[in-house]
Formats: sequence, C-alpha cells, structure tokens
Amino acid sequence: MELLKNKIKQDGIAVNEHILKVDSFINHQIDPVLMQEMGKDIAEHFKNRNVTKVATIESSGIAPALMTAVALKVPMIILKKQPSKILNQDLYQTVVTSYTKETNYELTLSKKYIGAEDHVLIVDDFLANGEAATAALRLLRMSHATIAGLAVLIEKSFQPGHEKLISQGIEVYALAQITEMSENHIRFKD
Amino acid sequence: MELLKNKIKQDGIAVNEHILKVDSFINHQIDPVLMQEMGKDIAEHFKNRNVTKVATIESSGIAPALMTAVALKVPMIILKKQPSKILNQDLYQTVVTSYTKETNYELTLSKKYIGAEDHVLIVDDFLANGEAATAALRLLRMSHATIAGLAVLIEKSFQPGHEKLISQGIEVYALAQITEMSENHIRFKD
Repeated sequence: MELLKNKIKQDGIAVNEHILKVDSFINHQIDPVLMQEMGKDIAEHFKNRNVTKVATIESSGIAPALMTAVALKVPMIILKKQPSKILNQDLYQTVVTSYTKETNYELTLSKKYIGAEDHVLIVDDFLANGEAATAALRLLRMSHATIAGLAVLIEKSFQPGHEKLISQGIEVYALAQITEMSENHIRFKD
Repeated sequence: MELLKNKIKQDGIAVNEHILKVDSFINHQIDPVLMQEMGKDIAEHFKNRNVTKVATIESSGIAPALMTAVALKVPMIILKKQPSKILNQDLYQTVVTSYTKETNYELTLSKKYIGAEDHVLIVDDFLANGEAATAALRLLRMSHATIAGLAVLIEKSFQPGHEKLISQGIEVYALAQITEMSENHIRFKD
C-alpha cells in the first residue's frame, strides 16, 4: 500500500536493524484518516472470504482491527492480555512469551464470542517474530473457528514470523513489507 | 444517547451495585457500527470547541476515541501505560492508583505530540471514580494544552468521578448516565 509506505518513508524512524519507530502515526499518535484507509484496504483484500469476526491482540492492534471491522461490518474481538494465569472455565487461555519485551503474559478469549461457525480475520500492527500472531492462532483454534487470514500493517520480512505463519497454511497480508533495515535506512519489497 | 442506553438494557449485565459488564459490545467484543455512531455523537457535541487532538487511556478507550477522532478528523493520542517508573526526559509521566484493580501504573505521554497550542478532548469508555481521567488531566496539564472536555460512553453517576471533574471546571459529556444499579437492575438519568 503506497500510502503507508510513503508515510513510513516520511515519518518512520529506523533506529537500527530491528527497531522501527512509528510512534507518530500508528502506536502513540494515530492518524485516523490513514488508519481508516488501511482498514478499508484490508477489508477489500479479504472481502470474499466470508469473514464473520475480526480479532486482534490488546492493545496496539485495536485501531487497525476496528477500522477493518467497520469496513467489513462485522464484530471485532480484542484478545485480552492478563498478567498471570488465573484459570477461568469461561475463557480460552494461552501463554505468550515476548522475546522483545522479555516478559510472559496470558492471552484470553471468552468462549462466548467466537465459535466453530466463525471465519476469523486476525489484524495486528506489526509482524516480526510472529509470537503474538501464533498465540492468537492457538486461541482461535481452541474455538474451532476457521482462520480467514492474518493482516498486518507492517511486516519485517527479514524476521521469521511470515515464514512461521505461511508454513501453517495461513495467508499473510501485509500493507508494507520491509526486507532490510538499518539506522536511517528502510528497504521495502517491490 | 438512546442507541447506547437500549444496547445496555438489552445486553449489559448489572452484576451488583458496582460492576456493569458490557463485554459483548464495548470491552471484549466490539460492535463497530455502534462504536462509529457513538464517535459521531461525541464529535457532534464538541464540534465548536476547536478540538485539535483526541486523547485516550490505553486500552479500553482506544475504540471510542478512534471513532471520535475519525469524525473530528484530528489526530488521536494514546496515553500509554507502563508497569513501573522508568524516567525518560522525552515523556510526561504520572502515577495512577487503580482502586478497582488494586494496582499502580504509570501513564505517559511523549512531549512531541501535545503542546500548549492544542485543545484536547479526552475520550474513555467508563467514568466511575475518575482515577484514569484525573491522571490524564494531570498529564495534559504538564503539556499546557487546553482541555476541551471529557467524553465517556458510560458514566456511573453515583460514583465520585463526575463531581471530581466538574469541580475542576471540566465539561463531562456521557452518552449514558447510570444513576442506580443493583443485580439485574439499571436506572438511567432522565
């Protein structure tokens, strides 16, 4: 998506090989017009997949997932983080290890909101190592829902997340794919 | 706002005097059409206040704040939570004590994104004790921005948040005001 690539070129900050700061339009300050356009683009891409729910991971995926859900006119589900394991029979639960933040947390989903009849599109801001996305997949599989795909705003294609997901048969759609990054330098695919 | 009051009557669950569950359309599962209508309503109410930024508190305020920012066509700022105090000279920082969750966290705002020239509308999902809203106010005052007001989806008018805020001269706009609550019983203002 050219709109996002241009915004990243203009306002994104490549700190080093691994860290891309997009604080000024995606993470901390949000450009609502850009976010709306990105949601429409994702919705357009998945429009023939019979998507019944959009799911995302708390909290930086909420904005793009909401704009996608608005465009698809389907409910959106926030997979909630909780700090420690509190067993609850009304929830699907899975533990996520975040290498970037060096923490563990639990991701939860109420059994009420997603079932075997659903086709779920997962939306998140970033795909890098794929930890959050694979945890979301684990949760959604517990519900026996069909996974329509994963859409992310920015993919760091040089990290293993993309491969990990497509090797499980998941379609990954990224609005911007970064193939190489270093201080003040970003290279996109294509 | 009748649309929200009717939704609360239909799908909200009053557990006791203090706990209202709106998991099925606001907190865990989100109804994007309702969220969009609520954002438009808030934007309409504050349309003559010269709002330049919408601010919210991570993470349950993100959805209503984003829909308000879309309607007002202004940037949205997520005041970020961090678990403990890490001093950073690029941030405004304040500690929040949550009585409901019995935890402390720090709320932060990058100095880059809000300044003295801004008119900021704070948007959140709930107003009860007003802890989060007053913390947001403290942060925004550090930036010397003008506070355009506070908009919330649901106000528990029998808790002290509303009074606390209006006594500081802040306009509070709530889409649904609950004056009384007990198990399976909710009374609205008007």
